[in-house]
Amino acid sequence: MYQKCLELLKQRKVTLDDIVECVMFLQKPYISSLTQEECKEAIIAVLHKREVQHAIITGLYLDQAAECNLISDSNLKSLLMEDNALYGVDEVLAYGICNLYGSIALTNYGYIDKVKPGIIGEMNKSHQKCNTFLDDIVGAIAASAASKIAHTK
Amino acid sequence: MYQKCLELLKQRKVTLDDIVECVMFLQKPYISSLTQEECKEAIIAVLHKREVQHAIITGLYLDQAAECNLISDSNLKSLLMEDNALYGVDEVLAYGICNLYGSIALTNYGYIDKVKPGIIGEMNKSHQKCNTFLDDIVGAIAASAASKIAHTK
Amino acid sequence: MYQKCLELLKQRKVTLDDIVECVMFLQKPYISSLTQEECKEAIIAVLHKREVQHAIITGLYLDQAAECNLISDSNLKSLLMEDNALYGVDEVLAYGICNLYGSIALTNYGYIDKVKPGIIGEMNKSHQKCNTFLDDIVGAIAASAASKIAHTK
Amino acid sequence: MYQKCLELLKQRKVTLDDIVECVMFLQKPYISSLTQEECKEAIIAVLHKREVQHAIITGLYLDQAAECNLISDSNLKSLLMEDNALYGVDEVLAYGICNLYGSIALTNYGYIDKVKPGIIGEMNKSHQKCNTFLDDIVGAIAASAASKIAHTK
Repeated sequence: MYQKCLELLKQRKVTLDDIVECVMFLQKPYISSLTQEECKEAIIAVLHKREVQHAIITGLYLDQAAECNLISDSNLKSLLMEDNALYGVDEVLAYGICNLYGSIALTNYGYIDKVKPGIIGEMNKSHQKCNTFLDDIVGAIAASAASKIAHTK
Repeated sequence: MYQKCLELLKQRKVTLDDIVECVMFLQKPYISSLTQEECKEAIIAVLHKREVQHAIITGLYLDQAAECNLISDSNLKSLLMEDNALYGVDEVLAYGICNLYGSIALTNYGYIDKVKPGIIGEMNKSHQKCNTFLDDIVGAIAASAASKIAHTK
Repeated sequence: MYQKCLELLKQRKVTLDDIVECVMFLQKPYISSLTQEECKEAIIAVLHKREVQHAIITGLYLDQAAECNLISDSNLKSLLMEDNALYGVDEVLAYGICNLYGSIALTNYGYIDKVKPGIIGEMNKSHQKCNTFLDDIVGAIAASAASKIAHTK
Repeated sequence: MYQKCLELLKQRKVTLDDIVECVMFLQKPYISSLTQEECKEAIIAVLHKREVQHAIITGLYLDQAAECNLISDSNLKSLLMEDNALYGVDEVLAYGICNLYGSIALTNYGYIDKVKPGIIGEMNKSHQKCNTFLDDIVGAIAASAASKIAHTK
């Protein structure tokens, strides 16, 4: 399942290195010696958690379903296609990930979701694409990995 | 949107009266004078919250997508079709509803999700059907309405 | 810090074996071969998490402060001394523990908090004592250990 | 109880106007016509919720107990006095507030907790003072009021 999640993220143009960049953005200010390798290890650990994997396959399915016109409900489809600011189910899924890594992960996620560094800011620029869940899931994975590092260093 | 959510629930064979029964189950032991009308009012208020509506249309879409073979990912499809015990995204969505109504709602939901009174216990008996999200969403609506009553009585 | 938390729980008359009993109550119905030893291991792992330890020392401090008359604010003192049903900060702390173990832990906690098996039901019977936080914290530890077992078995 | 919470905040040098400033910081970028009066109304509504009030009186009690040397447990006392970065119970209480206002409130809180605008940044500068819970509670109230505005405008 871990390999599958990596594949799904890659199909949506997100690599481990993109997430490493987000973790560095979050945690480097606190730990100046932090290396990309350490970030990668933390991300890989996060991606091995079953609840994280389930959030990824569910959220990315919803993005694709909206994109591929598999959602007949016009309200849901347009909420997803426009990444409506008042639609919060994507954040709810993201919190489902962050909660597993404690309060630091939640704060990190709220911050990254506003500042949108690196790959997170690059998403959602194309109008045919739907990355409503993807950006929150990537943010949550990065926030969780950063929290894991904070607790173990 | 409120009307639409009522419709969606009805299509999945859940009526307001079914949810009233769950609220009575939860709250009647604490308030002996509680009426069905009061429960109904509380449920209607819950169903008017935007975040609740978004959870309903998203969760019920996933159930239907699994049922109608719109999910090509075989892992996700079988997790949903079998209501896998370790798949927790349905509970995560339910918590997204309950959180809006405070800690009593969360406790109520955990309880109702185990005891499965009334309509909640009747779901998921057919093998062609997928009610993975439906039962948690109905439980969360009932738990939230019961919490609302506890705080206002 | 782990030893300290064990000590604090023991001072409040809660032993590891009491919590084992709660975990067996929650998880034995699903895993008939579950042993007390396995429950104990899971509890010990939960008690080693820093966020769990912080919740324990904070919650048990509040119980003792109420009991020892260290709270001059009469509202807070009476909310704690009577374990007021609408006071939810104890549940909020408990959710802070359960969230680390995913959605199964939250559902388990909601259930155990209503049914109050074993040690959880025995608390709060004395009027000079305040166990407002203790029962929720013990329930959350048991619920988390049961969730950990569900995910690893 | 509402008046009491206002008093408690004032004793800790936080006024409604300070919180208004935080709400403006969060929400003005999205609603250019937003007035201070509207922010104040939203804050007052937040401060009338029972769960918010309970979080305030509990958190501010813990700050004062640390400051006034009422905490004999040296671990807890030093975690609070130094606002230890890995102590997360203050954030857990803050999430207990934000959760009532949905996912926008949580994201807002994560952001404000990092950026620390206005009054939030001014706290904790004195070494005899303990504002470990205060800054998170004020951030959570502002984040919740901003979310309320986002959902009603």
